[in-house]
This record gives sequence, C-alpha cells and structure tokens, in this order.
Amino acid sequence: MGYQEFTIEGRKAVIEAFRAGKPIDKIFILDGCQDGPIMTIKREAKKHDTLIKFVTRERLDQMSETGKHQGVIAYAAAYEYAEVDDILQAAREKGEDPFLFLLDNIEDPHNLGAIIRTANLAGAHGVIIPKNRAAGLTATVAKASAGALNYTPVAKVTNLSKTIGELKKEGIWFVCADMGGTVMYDLNLKGPIGLVIGNEGEGVGRLVKEKCDMVASIPMKGDIDSLNASVAAGVLAYEIVRQRRRRQ
Amino acid sequence: MGYQEFTIEGRKAVIEAFRAGKPIDKIFILDGCQDGPIMTIKREAKKHDTLIKFVTRERLDQMSETGKHQGVIAYAAAYEYAEVDDILQAAREKGEDPFLFLLDNIEDPHNLGAIIRTANLAGAHGVIIPKNRAAGLTATVAKASAGALNYTPVAKVTNLSKTIGELKKEGIWFVCADMGGTVMYDLNLKGPIGLVIGNEGEGVGRLVKEKCDMVASIPMKGDIDSLNASVAAGVLAYEIVRQRRRRQ
Repeated sequence: MGYQEFTIEGRKAVIEAFRAGKPIDKIFILDGCQDGPIMTIKREAKKHDTLIKFVTRERLDQMSETGKHQGVIAYAAAYEYAEVDDILQAAREKGEDPFLFLLDNIEDPHNLGAIIRTANLAGAHGVIIPKNRAAGLTATVAKASAGALNYTPVAKVTNLSKTIGELKKEGIWFVCADMGGTVMYDLNLKGPIGLVIGNEGEGVGRLVKEKCDMVASIPMKGDIDSLNASVAAGVLAYEIVRQRRRRQ
Repeated sequence: MGYQEFTIEGRKAVIEAFRAGKPIDKIFILDGCQDGPIMTIKREAKKHDTLIKFVTRERLDQMSETGKHQGVIAYAAAYEYAEVDDILQAAREKGEDPFLFLLDNIEDPHNLGAIIRTANLAGAHGVIIPKNRAAGLTATVAKASAGALNYTPVAKVTNLSKTIGELKKEGIWFVCADMGGTVMYDLNLKGPIGLVIGNEGEGVGRLVKEKCDMVASIPMKGDIDSLNASVAAGVLAYEIVRQRRRRQ
C-alpha cells in the first residue's frame, strides 16, 4: 500500500483523481454550484459512493491549502483500501482463525490510527470501517497508526450490519463493546471473531448491535462514563488475545 | 478541584500567580532578560520548583494569546495537584489495596488525559507524574480525561524513582511496562500495586525501571514496535483489574 496525497483541490484535479481510481473519502462542493465540471464531479462521486458535502465559500477558503479550490475540495485516502476478502485471505494464509476489528463510525482520526495500531499488535487480520461519517484513512490516521497502516489491511464497506451478516455465514462470531453486557472475562472470545467498537459519543449503533452474538462490557469502577474509544478497543482486543493464547 | 486559567502572560500577572499559590508548570522567559521583575520571577520559580525555559522573542510572540507577554509567559495547571499522601488516604478510606498509576514523562496531553480517564475507570486511587518535561494538567488534558480529573487525584513529584523508593516502604509493589519483560498474564499483579508507564518514545527511564519489582510485557504479534501509550496503560491496567477481581 503506498502513501498518497491527501487533499485534492480544483475541478480538473478532482475529476482526474476519480478517473485514476484514487480512493476519495469526501468531497466538499460550493453550495449552489451547478456548472458542467461540478455536475461531472457529482456524478463520479455518486458512482464511487463518495460522501458529498455542500458548503459555503468561506468554509472552502478556510480548508484550501492552495487558495485555488475553484469550488471543490476532495479528501483522498492516504492509503489504498483493502477488500474484506483480502482480510479473510490473510487469516487463511497464516492458518489462524480470523480476528477482525469492525469500527462503527469512529470519528477521531487519532483514535482510528491508534486502533489500527492496536489491531496490528494484537494480531488481528484486518479492520473494517463503514463508508459514511467515519474518519477515512488520512495522513493523520497514518501517523497515529505508527506505521501499522502499512501492514494491517483496512476495508471500507457500505453497510456494516450487512457485512456482519455475510461474515457470520463464514463462521465468524461477533462481539460488540457496550455497557450493560456480560463482563468480558466471562465471555468465550476464542475462535473466529469480529470485535465491534462503537462511535466515541454514541457507542455501537442499534442495527449493528442487533447483529452481534455477544455484548462485552469492560468492568468500570470509576465516576465517569466510559473509556476513550481506542483504549476500550485495546482492552477488549487483549482480552481476546489472552483467551486465544490460553487455548494454544 | 476547580478549573483554572491556563496561560498567564506578563510580569505582574506571573508574579501574582506565584504569590497566590497557583500551580505553575512551566515558565518561558525571554533569553537575556535580567531586570528586577524577571529576577523576582526566576526566584519564585526556583522556590516552587517550576521549570524555566529561556526562549527567543519570536517564540514568545508565537505563544502569546494576548500579544502583551512582556518577556514572560507562564503555564499554570488547570487543576490543583494532590499530594501522594492524599492518594494513599483515598485507598485507605475505601478499604482497598492501593492501586496507583505512575507516568514516567508522558508528553502528549491527549495521552495524559486518556490515561487519567483509564485510571479512574479501572479503580485506581490516583496518578503520579514527574515535575519536569512531562505534560502538566492543562485544559487539553482535562478535556481528554472526560471529567476524570475531577475525581482522580494527580500528584506531581520531583523525582519519580525516589517516590517509588518511598512507596515501596509502604508495601506497594511496582510493575513497569516495557518490552523484554515477563508476559503480563504470567505475573502476579494482585495486592498493593503501582503501574509505571513510560514516555511515548523512550519508554520507562533506566533509574525508574531499576526501582521496579517487575517488568510486564504486553504480547505483541504484529509488525510494528509498540502500542500507543494510553492504550498500553489501559491494557495493563485491566490485566491488574482482572487479577484483582479473581481474588475477590
């Protein structure tokens, strides 16, 4: 996976990026802009399932690094995304039960990077993130991952609960992190497993949670609500590591 | 513990802050400045064991929020620091074995905040940080702690290894996180314990490490070097939680 430029500004540059197959996370378009090139960009964005946001000129001017955005700024992925199948294949090649991380709308790029870093060190085969809302693989994520993005494949899917449904057919069990579940030490987390981590503020979404086989809770003794999302992911991932290790 | 202002600029303001007993982490003074008020500030800083940095006018201008720094900018703690004894007292009041976090120069305020958040939820009685170099209790730390700073006492000490030596006399065992130690699952982490977490880049310092009774390693399966410091602290803290829980 190679490092790529992050912000793409200007109509021609953005259209060319789409046509070259660069993975674009989000496009910001000047609200009310309707001319030919912008319509082309909108069509390409739809075709590639890219999120479009309509914003004011002030917002675009603020975001612009070149000062020449021409009404459009695209955020391209710093790294290439993998496919879910690549992740399962990686597990097969190692002769291991699949161990996946699924991130239900992690928004903070530092958290996303730290979680990919944890996934790598905990021996997970890959990370699956949803297409919309969540942070994409930006330069900030790459930096926070401390190099793990070069090794751990990240796949982007349109519908996380649908993907969970499909992966269950492959024999993978899903555990999501949430309050009010079973204390993680009391769950059986061995075998092929997908660890689902929720959004920083809202936790795991209802539809995703309903698809999960188990709800794991981290015991909380303190006065506040919840751990940082990347810390919670680490604590749960290492409970899975501990249980897998005991079996071996 | 109440929230306080973070940056203090100007000679009078800084001198008054010292005299009012505000906890000041660091002072930036214009290099070469030797007049009366600056000499007073230097004396106060020495008396309070505050770190002084001599910097250029350009640096001060950059740091200044008011534009009127008069050659001196102080960084005050956003929260009041506790004493180490307060932390031990908190454990005694709860009738629990002391469980402390000791942070050997955590520099990133987001990490520091996330670790204090973890300490709170893991049921630790307090956090001890060294006076120099490390991040202080700034507004960023307070935010990253998600409110935990209001509940979990943080003490600042001049010499971390000396403090460890003193606390060992109280019957507390110290475990530091480092590579090349014993896998954490194989250590006995029950009883009165201090968890020592190292600096983001350099890990635990040699003098501190030598004082520790055990070196705990998190098993690493991946391709990169280490977990994010706050994730590592979380993983180790919850191994302690797991072992303490089993005993009960």
